[in-house]
Amino acid sequence: MKILVMHGPNLNLLGTREPSIYGNVTIKEINSAISALALEMGIEVNIVQSNSEGALIERIHAAIGIYDGILINPAAYTHTSIAIRAALSAAALPVVEVHLSNIHSREEFRSRSFIAPIALGQISGFGPDSYLLGLRAIFNHLTKGL
Amino acid sequence: MKILVMHGPNLNLLGTREPSIYGNVTIKEINSAISALALEMGIEVNIVQSNSEGALIERIHAAIGIYDGILINPAAYTHTSIAIRAALSAAALPVVEVHLSNIHSREEFRSRSFIAPIALGQISGFGPDSYLLGLRAIFNHLTKGL
Amino acid sequence: MKILVMHGPNLNLLGTREPSIYGNVTIKEINSAISALALEMGIEVNIVQSNSEGALIERIHAAIGIYDGILINPAAYTHTSIAIRAALSAAALPVVEVHLSNIHSREEFRSRSFIAPIALGQISGFGPDSYLLGLRAIFNHLTKGL
Amino acid sequence: MKILVMHGPNLNLLGTREPSIYGNVTIKEINSAISALALEMGIEVNIVQSNSEGALIERIHAAIGIYDGILINPAAYTHTSIAIRAALSAAALPVVEVHLSNIHSREEFRSRSFIAPIALGQISGFGPDSYLLGLRAIFNHLTKGL
Amino acid sequence: MKILVMHGPNLNLLGTREPSIYGNVTIKEINSAISALALEMGIEVNIVQSNSEGALIERIHAAIGIYDGILINPAAYTHTSIAIRAALSAAALPVVEVHLSNIHSREEFRSRSFIAPIALGQISGFGPDSYLLGLRAIFNHLTKGL
Amino acid sequence: MKILVMHGPNLNLLGTREPSIYGNVTIKEINSAISALALEMGIEVNIVQSNSEGALIERIHAAIGIYDGILINPAAYTHTSIAIRAALSAAALPVVEVHLSNIHSREEFRSRSFIAPIALGQISGFGPDSYLLGLRAIFNHLTKGL
Amino acid sequence: MKILVMHGPNLNLLGTREPSIYGNVTIKEINSAISALALEMGIEVNIVQSNSEGALIERIHAAIGIYDGILINPAAYTHTSIAIRAALSAAALPVVEVHLSNIHSREEFRSRSFIAPIALGQISGFGPDSYLLGLRAIFNHLTKGL
Amino acid sequence: MKILVMHGPNLNLLGTREPSIYGNVTIKEINSAISALALEMGIEVNIVQSNSEGALIERIHAAIGIYDGILINPAAYTHTSIAIRAALSAAALPVVEVHLSNIHSREEFRSRSFIAPIALGQISGFGPDSYLLGLRAIFNHLTKGL
Amino acid sequence: MKILVMHGPNLNLLGTREPSIYGNVTIKEINSAISALALEMGIEVNIVQSNSEGALIERIHAAIGIYDGILINPAAYTHTSIAIRAALSAAALPVVEVHLSNIHSREEFRSRSFIAPIALGQISGFGPDSYLLGLRAIFNHLTKGL
Amino acid sequence: MKILVMHGPNLNLLGTREPSIYGNVTIKEINSAISALALEMGIEVNIVQSNSEGALIERIHAAIGIYDGILINPAAYTHTSIAIRAALSAAALPVVEVHLSNIHSREEFRSRSFIAPIALGQISGFGPDSYLLGLRAIFNHLTKGL
Amino acid sequence: MKILVMHGPNLNLLGTREPSIYGNVTIKEINSAISALALEMGIEVNIVQSNSEGALIERIHAAIGIYDGILINPAAYTHTSIAIRAALSAAALPVVEVHLSNIHSREEFRSRSFIAPIALGQISGFGPDSYLLGLRAIFNHLTKGL
Amino acid sequence: MKILVMHGPNLNLLGTREPSIYGNVTIKEINSAISALALEMGIEVNIVQSNSEGALIERIHAAIGIYDGILINPAAYTHTSIAIRAALSAAALPVVEVHLSNIHSREEFRSRSFIAPIALGQISGFGPDSYLLGLRAIFNHLTKGL
Repeated sequence: MKILVMHGPNLNLLGTREPSIYGNVTIKEINSAISALALEMGIEVNIVQSNSEGALIERIHAAIGIYDGILINPAAYTHTSIAIRAALSAAALPVVEVHLSNIHSREEFRSRSFIAPIALGQISGFGPDSYLLGLRAIFNHLTKGL
Repeated sequence: MKILVMHGPNLNLLGTREPSIYGNVTIKEINSAISALALEMGIEVNIVQSNSEGALIERIHAAIGIYDGILINPAAYTHTSIAIRAALSAAALPVVEVHLSNIHSREEFRSRSFIAPIALGQISGFGPDSYLLGLRAIFNHLTKGL
Repeated sequence: MKILVMHGPNLNLLGTREPSIYGNVTIKEINSAISALALEMGIEVNIVQSNSEGALIERIHAAIGIYDGILINPAAYTHTSIAIRAALSAAALPVVEVHLSNIHSREEFRSRSFIAPIALGQISGFGPDSYLLGLRAIFNHLTKGL
Repeated sequence: MKILVMHGPNLNLLGTREPSIYGNVTIKEINSAISALALEMGIEVNIVQSNSEGALIERIHAAIGIYDGILINPAAYTHTSIAIRAALSAAALPVVEVHLSNIHSREEFRSRSFIAPIALGQISGFGPDSYLLGLRAIFNHLTKGL
Repeated sequence: MKILVMHGPNLNLLGTREPSIYGNVTIKEINSAISALALEMGIEVNIVQSNSEGALIERIHAAIGIYDGILINPAAYTHTSIAIRAALSAAALPVVEVHLSNIHSREEFRSRSFIAPIALGQISGFGPDSYLLGLRAIFNHLTKGL
Repeated sequence: MKILVMHGPNLNLLGTREPSIYGNVTIKEINSAISALALEMGIEVNIVQSNSEGALIERIHAAIGIYDGILINPAAYTHTSIAIRAALSAAALPVVEVHLSNIHSREEFRSRSFIAPIALGQISGFGPDSYLLGLRAIFNHLTKGL
Repeated sequence: MKILVMHGPNLNLLGTREPSIYGNVTIKEINSAISALALEMGIEVNIVQSNSEGALIERIHAAIGIYDGILINPAAYTHTSIAIRAALSAAALPVVEVHLSNIHSREEFRSRSFIAPIALGQISGFGPDSYLLGLRAIFNHLTKGL
Repeated sequence: MKILVMHGPNLNLLGTREPSIYGNVTIKEINSAISALALEMGIEVNIVQSNSEGALIERIHAAIGIYDGILINPAAYTHTSIAIRAALSAAALPVVEVHLSNIHSREEFRSRSFIAPIALGQISGFGPDSYLLGLRAIFNHLTKGL
Repeated sequence: MKILVMHGPNLNLLGTREPSIYGNVTIKEINSAISALALEMGIEVNIVQSNSEGALIERIHAAIGIYDGILINPAAYTHTSIAIRAALSAAALPVVEVHLSNIHSREEFRSRSFIAPIALGQISGFGPDSYLLGLRAIFNHLTKGL
Repeated sequence: MKILVMHGPNLNLLGTREPSIYGNVTIKEINSAISALALEMGIEVNIVQSNSEGALIERIHAAIGIYDGILINPAAYTHTSIAIRAALSAAALPVVEVHLSNIHSREEFRSRSFIAPIALGQISGFGPDSYLLGLRAIFNHLTKGL
Repeated sequence: MKILVMHGPNLNLLGTREPSIYGNVTIKEINSAISALALEMGIEVNIVQSNSEGALIERIHAAIGIYDGILINPAAYTHTSIAIRAALSAAALPVVEVHLSNIHSREEFRSRSFIAPIALGQISGFGPDSYLLGLRAIFNHLTKGL
Repeated sequence: MKILVMHGPNLNLLGTREPSIYGNVTIKEINSAISALALEMGIEVNIVQSNSEGALIERIHAAIGIYDGILINPAAYTHTSIAIRAALSAAALPVVEVHLSNIHSREEFRSRSFIAPIALGQISGFGPDSYLLGLRAIFNHLTKGL
C-alpha cells in the first residue's frame, strides 16, 4: 500500500508559526511520526509539501496509478481551491482531509471546505495527531473496507 | 482513563437504517469494536445511546467528575441542539465529535455542527472507524497532549 | 393495512389552543373521525400523541415491521427536528405529513419543513380534514399505487 | 356546488412528460377520475387547462359569481406568478392548491409557492390523487366547514 | 401629445376586488377621470388593459412612433416581468409607473419593481389619484422638461 | 388646509449639487413653485429645511395639531432614519414622501425607504415636479378622499 | 397570584458551569432568592427545572388554569424550540423570558429567540437578578396592568 | 449613587403617540415613577430626553466621572446608532437598555440593537415598568454585584 | 434534421431596440443568416418569435415528435420562466440556449437562467453569431455526438 | 492650499476612550501633530470636531468654495450616514477618509463604509498617523496629481 | 490572425478524468481538432495548458502585442481567480470563455464565473465542440465584427 | 530597518494596463519612487513582484528574521488568497496593505480583503502614492510606535 501525504501552503513553517493555534511541533517531527506509523502499519508513504496550488495539483496528477490513496492537509487552499478539488476528483483515489486546528471553531470562512465533499472524510482539530488518525483512516478504508 | 461514548438519535437502528449511507454494521458490532480497542488501549469505556435530547444532556451532566472525556456521535442533534452543546461546554471535558457518514458531502443543512466549535475536533466520514479513530484521538489528547 | 397516526407536540391541547388558528375541534374528536374513516376504509389505525421529540422517534422505530405507513402531524417539530426526519427515513415506510393550519401563510420560519422532503407528500391547511385526506392519501398510495 | 378545476402550464402533456417525476397517467385519465368523484359527491365540475398565465387569470375572473371554489394545480406558475395569486385573491373564492409531485423535495426554487399563502391549503406529492384529495378538501370546506 | 395608459393584470376587476386594499372605484371610473384630465390638459390618451404579459408587450411595441409616453400600472407584473421592462426599454419612450396601493407597505416581494429602474419615476399609494398624478408627471416631463 | 413641507439633508444645496443627478433648479425656485401651486389650490404651506435628523423630528412634533399633512423629501435620511419614521407615525398625520431622483434606479441601498411603509404613498423621480405632484396628492387625499 | 418559574436545560448546573459567563451563584441560591422575593410580594411560586423539551412543554400544559403567569429562562431552547413557543402560546398565559447572560452580546445564533415574540417581554443580562426583575415584571403586569 | 436616565427620540410624545403600541402613560408620569422609585432606593437620578443623536452623545460624554451608570431607552436610535454605542463604550459606565414595547415581536429591523452588545443587559416589553425594572437592575449591579 | 429556432419576447424589435446593447442587425437579417447556414448544413429550420410565454410553451409542445432539437433565445423569459423550462424538459429534445448580449456582464438578475440547467449548453455574448454558433452546436450534438 | 480636517463623533474623548482600541494619544495631541505637519507642508488647516451628523453636514457645506479638500475621520458615522456621504458628494471636493483603528479587523458592521465609495481613498489602522498620512495623501493628490 | 488557446487546471487529464462529466476525448484529440479547424479558417493558433494560476497569468501577459484574441477554458479557476480576470482585462484582447460541461447545471458554486463579465461571451456545455465554437466566435468577432 | 515591498499579480503591467483605473505610471517608476523615499528615510527596501500565489508565499516565508515589516499590494489575491493571509500571519511581521485604486468604490467582490484583518492597516485609492504612504506608515509604526 502506497499513500501520498500532502502538506499544503505554509505548513513548512509549522512549529514556529502561530504556536497558540498550530502548536510547536515542527513539520519534520510530524513527518517522522507519520513515517514511523506507516512503517509500523506496513504502508509506504511519500510526503510532500508545497505552497503552490499548481504544484499541488501536479503532485496529485502524478499520483494516479502509483498511489493507493492521498492524505492531504490542504491548509488555506481548503477554503479556496476548486482546482485542487478537481484534481483530487480526477485522480479518483480515496482522499482523507486532515487539519491541525479545529477549522469549525475559527473564522466563519474556515468552516467551508471545497475538498471535504469529494473526500472520504475529514479529521480536524487534533494537532499532529490528525495526520496519524488520517493515515489509519485511509489504511482501514483500503484494507478492511471500514 | 474513563471515556463516555455517546450515540445520538436513531443510531440504535444502525445496520438496518439506510445502509447505502450508513453501512450495514450494527450498533452492537460498533460497540464491540469500541470496547475491544478500549481494552487494548487500557481505557475504561461506557457506551450509551439515546434518542432523547434531554436524556443525552443528563448523561453528559452525570459524566462530570467521573469521566475524562466524551466521544460523541450527536447524529441529527449535531445540527439542531444548542442544548447539547451547552451541556458539553458545562461539563468542561474534552469532547471528540464523530460521524459515520461524511456530513460535508450531504445536504447543506448537515454541514453546520453546533457541537464542533466547542469540541477538540471532528472526525467525519469513515463509517464505524470514525469511532475508533475518535477513541484514539481522545486517548492521545489525554495521554500525550498531542 | 396498518397505519400509525402520530400527533406531535401541543396537539393534545387541540380545541382549546388558539382556536382562531387551530379551530375548536378537540384531539379526541379528530381521533374519532380518523378511526371512523379508517374503519370505513378497512384500515387498522393506531393513534399516538407525544410532546417529546425522543418519544416520537421511538414510536417511529417501533413501527418498523408492524405498520404499512405513517400519517404524521409533526407540529412544531416540522421546522426543527432533523432527528424525526432521520427516524422516518430509517423506518423506510411511506409517510404523509399533515398540518391543521396552512403553514405556508404564517410566519416565515413555518414554511420550511424538514419532514416534507422525505415524505410522500404534504397536506396543509384543512383543519381536522387534513388528517382524513392524509389517511386517504396513504391508503391510495398503498393500494392503488396512485 | 360548482367547482372550477384548473390545470396550469404543461399539464396537457401529462403521462408523456417526464414520467419518472410526474407518472404516466394522462390528463384525460385524471380528468375522468375527477369527474367520476365529483359525480359521486354531487359536485358540478368544469375542468380547464391553459399554458398561458393571462388566460388562467381570465378563467379565474370568469369564475366569480359562478363557481363555489377553485381547485388549481398552478404547475410552474406556482413559483413565479404573482398575477395568478392576485386573480385568486380578487375572486375571493376558496382555493385549494394541488401538485402531482412533492414540490418540497425538488429544486430549492420549487419550495416557494406564491399561491399557497392565499389558498385554503396545499396538497403536494400524491400524483393524480392530489386532485381527488383536493376535491374532497374543497367539498368538505364548503359543506361541513371542516 | 399622445399618451398610452396601460392597466396590468386584474385591474379590470377594480372596485370589486379587495376593496380594503384597492378601494371601490371601478376601472371605468378611473378611465373617465383620466380622460377628463387628459382633455383638460390637451393630451390625447388611449387606455388599454390586459391580463396577458405578452399582450402588454405587444401594446408597448405598437406604441413606438405613435405615442409620446407611457403611463403604466403594471400591477402584479411589476415584480415579475423582466419582459415588460425590456419592452419598455426597447420602446425608448418616457415611462411613468403608478400603483393604486402603497407597494412599499405590503409584502416584502412587492417592494421590488423591475419596471422602476427604467422608468422616469414611480408614484405609489394614492389610489386612483396615482394615475392622475402620473399623467401630470409625464405631461410636465414632456412639456416643461421638469 | 395647512401642509408642512419638509426638505431633508443637503437639499439646501440644490441646483449646485450634482446637477447630473438632481438637476439645476435651486431650492428657492422649488419653494416658489410649491408656494405658487399651494396658493392656487388654497393650501397654506410652511416650508422648512434641515440637515439635522433631530431638528426634523422636532419640526414633525411641532406639526401635530397645527398641520393637516406633511409633504417630505427625507433625502438621505430616507434610508437610515427609523427615528424620523417614528416621529411621522407618532404625528399621525397623512404623509407624502417625495424624491427628486428616481431612487429605484440608483445604488441598491437607496431602494429601501424606512419612511414609505408609514406614508400614504411615495413619488420618486420627477425632479422638482415630485413636490408639486406630492402637494396635489396630499390635497386630493384630504379633500376628496381619493 | 400563582407564578410558575421554569429553568431550561443545563441550568441545574449553575454555579459550577462556565462561571465566567454564568457566574457562580447556584440554582438553589437563585431559587431561594426567587422564593424570598415572591413571599415578600405575596406571590405563590412553583419552581421547576428540566433538561427535556418535552417535559418543559408538559409543565407548561399543566400550568393552564392553575397559574397566572410563567417566568421562564428557556436557556438553549430559546434559540431552537418552536415547540416550547407553541406550548406557551397555547397556554395563553402572560410569559416573561429571562436570561442570566446578555444573549445579545454573544454568538450570533444566540440573538434570535423563538420565545420573545410571544412573550410579554424579555430581560437579559443581569445574572440571577434577571429572575427577580422578571418576577416583578410579571407581578406588575398582573396587578397594575403596567 | 447617581444614575443618568436617558430617553431617546420621540419619547417626549409618550402617552399621545400610538397608544396601541406604547400605552397612554405620559413621559411626565414615567419620570415621576422613576423619581419616586429612585428616592425610595436612595438613588439620585437625572432624567433627560433628546431627539438628537448628537445631543444624546454629548449627554453621555458629560456623564463621565459624574454618574455611576446610565439607564437608556434609545428608542429608534437603538437600531441605527453606532455613534451612541460608541459614546456608551467610551463612557465605560454600566448601561442598562430598556424598551417600552417588546422589540422582539415587531418589525424585523427592530430586533437588532446596536446598544445591547455593549450594555449590561436589555429589558424590553414591559411598558413604563421597563424603566423601573432597569433602575433596579442597575442599582443591584452597582450595589450587590448581582 | 429539423430544428426549431425560437426567439423570445421583444426580439421582433431587434436592430431598432437599444442598439448599444443588442446591435443594429434586424431579426430578419438574423433569420436569413440562420436559414443560409441551415441550408449549407442540410438542416431544415423553422423560425418563430413570440412575446407570449404561453405561446412559446405551445410552440415547444408542438415541436415534440417533429423536430430534432430546439435552438432558443428565451430573452427576458430566461430569468423568470419556470414554465418554459418545464415545457422544454417535457419535450425531451436537445436544447441550445443562446443570447445576443453577454448576460454575465449585465445586471445581477440577468446572470440566472432557469433554462440553462436543462439545456445542452448556453452560448452568450456574440450578437447574431450566437445563433449561428448555436445551430452548429445542436447540429454537431445530433450528428457527431460531440 | 486649505484643507478642512473633520473629526466625527466621540473623537473628542480620544486618549481616554477605550485605549486598548484607540490608543492614549489625545485629540489635542493629534491636532497639534496635524498642524505641525500642515505648517511644514505649507497647508492651511482648519480642524473641527462634532458629535452631530447635522453639524458635520453643515461644516461640509460651509467648506464649498473655501477649502481645497477634506480630511475626515467619520468615526461611527462611517457605517451609518448616507447624509454625510451626500454632503461630501455635493461639496465635490477631494475627500480622504481616515480611521485610527483598522476597521477591517473589527466587528462585521464596521467593514462597510458609506463614505469610502465617494472618497479618493481610505487609510485605516495606523492610529494618529492615519491623519498625517491622510494629509500627505490629499496634499499629493492636489499638488502632483498622484 | 493569431489566437492563443488556453486550457486551465486539470485539463491535461481530459479523457481519463471523470468521463461521465467531461467525456472521453483526450486533450490531444481536442488540440488536433482545434488545429484542424484553425488551419481551415486560416488562423494561427498556439495551444497551452497549465495547472498554475500564476503561469496562466504570465501566458496572458506574454500574449499582449502578439495575439489577436484568447480562447480560454479556465476550468476550476473560472470560479476563483480574480487574478486571471485581471490579467485578461489588462491584456485588453478579445476573450472567449469556453467550458466542456454545462457549468449552469452543476453545483451552485460553478455557476459564477469571474471571467465571463470581462469576456466577449461564454460557451458552455458542448464538450470538445465548445472549443471549436469558441474559435469560430472569436474569428467572426475579429473578422466580421459580428 | 529593512522592509520587503511586494507587488501582487498583474502589477508588472502597470502603466499599460487599464490606465483609466490604474493610471499610467509604470511599476519601474513606482519602484524608483519607493526607493527614493526609502533612501531619504533610511530604510533598506527590497522590492519584488510575482504573479504566483505560491511564489508570494515563499517570499513572505523568506522574509522571516530578515525584514522588519512587509508592505504589500496583494492586487487580485487580496480578495481570494487565504494562503497569503496565512503566510503573513505566520511571518508575524507588521504588514501594511496598499492598493492603487480605491477598492471600496468598485465591484462588490473587491470590497472584501482577506489580508486587511491581519494587517496593521490598509491604504487604498491614492495611486502610486499609496505605496509611499504605506512606507511611511510602516516606518512610523516601527520607529515611533504611532
